[in-house]
Amino acid sequence: MRHNKPPDDPLAALLDRVRIRLRDLTEGEPASYIPELSRADPDLFGLSLCALDGQVYSCGDSEVPFTVQSVSKPFVFALALADQGLEDVLARVGAEPSGEGFSSIRLEPGTGRPPNPMVNAGAIVTSSLVAGANPDERSARILAGLGAFAGRDLTVDDAVFASERATGDRNRALAYLMHNAGSLTGDVEEQLAVYFRQCSVLVTCDDLAVMHATLAGGGTNPLTGERVVASHHAQHVLAVMATCGMYDASGQWMLRVGLPAKSGVSGGIGVALPGQFGIGVFSPPLDEKGNSVRAIAACHLLSEQFGLHLMRATGSSGRPLPPRSLDPGPLRSLRHRPRDQRAALDERPDRIRVHVLQGDLDFATAEQTLRAARDLPKAARWFVLDLARVGRIEPVAADLLRALGHDLRERGIRMVIADPSARPVTHTKDEFADLGRAIESCEDELLTDLGLDPSEPVPLTDSDLFGRAGERAAQAVSDCFGTMSLPAGRTVEPPRAEPVVLWYVESGRLAVCAHSSRPTPAGRTWSAGPGAALTPADFHARLGQRVMAEEDSVCRTLTAAGLLRLRTAVPAAAAFLERSPLDGAETVDRPEGA
Amino acid sequence: MRHNKPPDDPLAALLDRVRIRLRDLTEGEPASYIPELSRADPDLFGLSLCALDGQVYSCGDSEVPFTVQSVSKPFVFALALADQGLEDVLARVGAEPSGEGFSSIRLEPGTGRPPNPMVNAGAIVTSSLVAGANPDERSARILAGLGAFAGRDLTVDDAVFASERATGDRNRALAYLMHNAGSLTGDVEEQLAVYFRQCSVLVTCDDLAVMHATLAGGGTNPLTGERVVASHHAQHVLAVMATCGMYDASGQWMLRVGLPAKSGVSGGIGVALPGQFGIGVFSPPLDEKGNSVRAIAACHLLSEQFGLHLMRATGSSGRPLPPRSLDPGPLRSLRHRPRDQRAALDERPDRIRVHVLQGDLDFATAEQTLRAARDLPKAARWFVLDLARVGRIEPVAADLLRALGHDLRERGIRMVIADPSARPVTHTKDEFADLGRAIESCEDELLTDLGLDPSEPVPLTDSDLFGRAGERAAQAVSDCFGTMSLPAGRTVEPPRAEPVVLWYVESGRLAVCAHSSRPTPAGRTWSAGPGAALTPADFHARLGQRVMAEEDSVCRTLTAAGLLRLRTAVPAAAAFLERSPLDGAETVDRPEGA
Repeated sequence: MRHNKPPDDPLAALLDRVRIRLRDLTEGEPASYIPELSRADPDLFGLSLCALDGQVYSCGDSEVPFTVQSVSKPFVFALALADQGLEDVLARVGAEPSGEGFSSIRLEPGTGRPPNPMVNAGAIVTSSLVAGANPDERSARILAGLGAFAGRDLTVDDAVFASERATGDRNRALAYLMHNAGSLTGDVEEQLAVYFRQCSVLVTCDDLAVMHATLAGGGTNPLTGERVVASHHAQHVLAVMATCGMYDASGQWMLRVGLPAKSGVSGGIGVALPGQFGIGVFSPPLDEKGNSVRAIAACHLLSEQFGLHLMRATGSSGRPLPPRSLDPGPLRSLRHRPRDQRAALDERPDRIRVHVLQGDLDFATAEQTLRAARDLPKAARWFVLDLARVGRIEPVAADLLRALGHDLRERGIRMVIADPSARPVTHTKDEFADLGRAIESCEDELLTDLGLDPSEPVPLTDSDLFGRAGERAAQAVSDCFGTMSLPAGRTVEPPRAEPVVLWYVESGRLAVCAHSSRPTPAGRTWSAGPGAALTPADFHARLGQRVMAEEDSVCRTLTAAGLLRLRTAVPAAAAFLERSPLDGAETVDRPEGA
Repeated sequence: MRHNKPPDDPLAALLDRVRIRLRDLTEGEPASYIPELSRADPDLFGLSLCALDGQVYSCGDSEVPFTVQSVSKPFVFALALADQGLEDVLARVGAEPSGEGFSSIRLEPGTGRPPNPMVNAGAIVTSSLVAGANPDERSARILAGLGAFAGRDLTVDDAVFASERATGDRNRALAYLMHNAGSLTGDVEEQLAVYFRQCSVLVTCDDLAVMHATLAGGGTNPLTGERVVASHHAQHVLAVMATCGMYDASGQWMLRVGLPAKSGVSGGIGVALPGQFGIGVFSPPLDEKGNSVRAIAACHLLSEQFGLHLMRATGSSGRPLPPRSLDPGPLRSLRHRPRDQRAALDERPDRIRVHVLQGDLDFATAEQTLRAARDLPKAARWFVLDLARVGRIEPVAADLLRALGHDLRERGIRMVIADPSARPVTHTKDEFADLGRAIESCEDELLTDLGLDPSEPVPLTDSDLFGRAGERAAQAVSDCFGTMSLPAGRTVEPPRAEPVVLWYVESGRLAVCAHSSRPTPAGRTWSAGPGAALTPADFHARLGQRVMAEEDSVCRTLTAAGLLRLRTAVPAAAAFLERSPLDGAETVDRPEGA
């Protein structure tokens, strides 16, 4: 299999729920005009979705081959556009909905043009417009072209081709009418052979998803990266699919599903979401209009559930910025911790991974998030989603994130949300107001798992603040310090009378916040737990900072006078203090905006 | 006039360039079937665009009244949906393109349903479905409903109504055919009167833009905030416009323009961009299909120039996050400056304004930016655009920003761009790698304008670092300091041997940057110019910081030993130094991400 498709993937699971819900729709019969199609298993039902980076999600019978039939029409139209250009193609075939069925025989008075490339008559003309010195070359070009859209080599079902050719009276009649009207040139039987062979190309539901993703992506195949047709030609094809793709049901289709689509008598339907996805659905039983009953129902359900209708004012077609992951590189909270705890975290950079989302969180963004979660390193135990820059959250995206949270739990990974707007997504306690706090909470859990207590008080006498100098004279050092108790929520004001040059946190937690007229969770820049120290600079208005006790805390304070006493009492300790950075978290990377 | 429409508005100017370019298209004639329309001035030409927040941009004859004619059809269809629901309406009128002209007489075999609500037959049925105990009530409901879509009270042109009624043979025939087929009930002449009156409602080009913005916005009028119809009904209407709105040219329209639209014989065309805009165009001369020649050309040009085609893979329909402006509240760079310069900046908070953009910078976002620029305070002299969170930049958006830069220059305002990705937008030197540097440069200019030199050296002896204590014993204070020269680009390493407790910048500039494996411009947190001071905390790895000289700089350094000497030499100076924050920029607000 060419793509990663874990059974537990939440998006594939979402597709599968649609499939299971519609599985029992038993109306309709497989096409009966040729034996090969009538023999199709009516229970076959597959759904596939291909994202523009080539990720394919599918369920059910998504890899069962069937003949592409009329779903080939948009792609051969695209090849004709590439070979002849829009104007020359439109000179031979119209672009108007006929208001009639797939075998509409109406030709434009005067020109004899068939109404559009999506009805059989128009499709016969467009396949005659594909480049090639003779029918065989055109057939080869078409087979290769369809393969380029699908991202793999395709083959023709010769039995179906023979049957189509033997029984294609209506198409034969259309071809002769057009030949008579002058809109179809060359040898009629040869042109028909090219068309019948095109309809007999074998594809799978996954192929349809990739082929339509190629159109949705502006003509570049998401699997191979090959540019199959120019983007303006892909745009032209989608436009014609939108107005003519579903024959005389095109208006209803745009009304209720709202997406460019094409169906075929073998039971396949392909759908393209410009700039977002390709979808393929396959199920042989057809309704009286010749469209797959289950596939039609699936498209309705997907459009509604995933919010994909092109005419939606609230724009699921909104194209968010691509999610930005702060990986690679370990990301740490700006929480001060004792050296041993910091070391424990530094040794395990992969345990906590952060994924930053930007823009509207819709189906597309959620899908990319699921992928990021799947690609987590083996060691990962926490997956932090930063929603600080996310606008609207679509219901389907929230569903997918909830499902992801569930799946991750089963993989032993905890999903944590950081969202200043506090929009409930997972409805769990794992939602924090800012990235810093979210990461901090993960670190606390990790440390606890490692038998280290992040909130355990670290008496000054146990601190590493004075190097070995401290160990030797802990009590003497401690005697130079005063003590300050801070209830939770209290803002710490540096005493004016007796200037403090060092605050040491023995217990609780202090946080340094941006001092702003509009305080935001993102204003919290870093925090200091037991064993950490602050200097006057941390209280400076310069960085617009404000120091607050987030928990009941006890600080030891060193005043200028105390520092002088320390210099005399334990010179080495004072020197070490004045020389060394207050901590050595050299690898800390500041999360932007946190 | 109900909306702000300055002649120098770059977007109105962009529309006007389209108008001027097409003004000389002189093909076509005004509709001739009734004298009132045939007398229309063929030179009339107006363009209007209405954003979803009610901002209307227009040019030319955008306020000349004309009868709405067939452009009323989508809106009366919407009212019928609101009154009867989708299924009941569809039971009486189809939703399929007819492949025929506006007066198509084709009725569905069996049901006698007209093909869709956009052709006359279908429109006569939908207006008969609007709620009302009698024709007068229906007419009143329709007139009020169209007014609700337009956001103002509308009136009927009685002369046109009389002529329509007198000459409407074809419509009369359609009505009787449908009455015979059972698809039109009630008194035929009365139903026709309702329809003819609906077509005779007077609107302007601006009205059309607002009416279609109401549909594009999901049924809520952007001017009045009134919900006119439910969002799913607005979606239904846009879908039918997309497939049937341009009659038998609907396919070509979707192919080349790619937007739901409706045209009328009086020369108006309305266009809706789901979730983005409404557009109105008006020019009486018609082509042989009965569509305004100039209006059609304008829609083609706008769709292409503004990148609005619904089938575009690169999604100008992408819906970026709404631009976030950091106003209100003064925003200052984190550059340290001497007290007098800081005070000079604090006294002029409105001179430098910042506008932060997020998401894709397309036509919509650019339009909102122009509005923010128009709403700048009188005192503003610098307009800083932060593009750090902007994804793709559409050509039309870049054009508009360039035009904005030009307009602002004429208003004496300098537009400055902050963009880490360094995408040339204005092609001027006013583009910086990060917001901090951009604001800093504006501040430097402001200070220079005020006769203050931001780069003038401030000798330690002139500094305000020691309060009045310093003034009295400047030299004695200075003698306690050492001197350090730093060439531009040099990273400042705190000397290990003789610990420095204070760095004072006499000249040049130091910058504190986030110390990261992946250094980014945004990593530059703040900078220190002449008169500013740094403490050991600023060199701490804790915040992942690194201090660099951005220019050749001279620092005065106070070591621990120097501090002891200072305590003896000038105790008051030492006390002041240890007590006071290093500067008093209490109002500094930290730009997130800067």
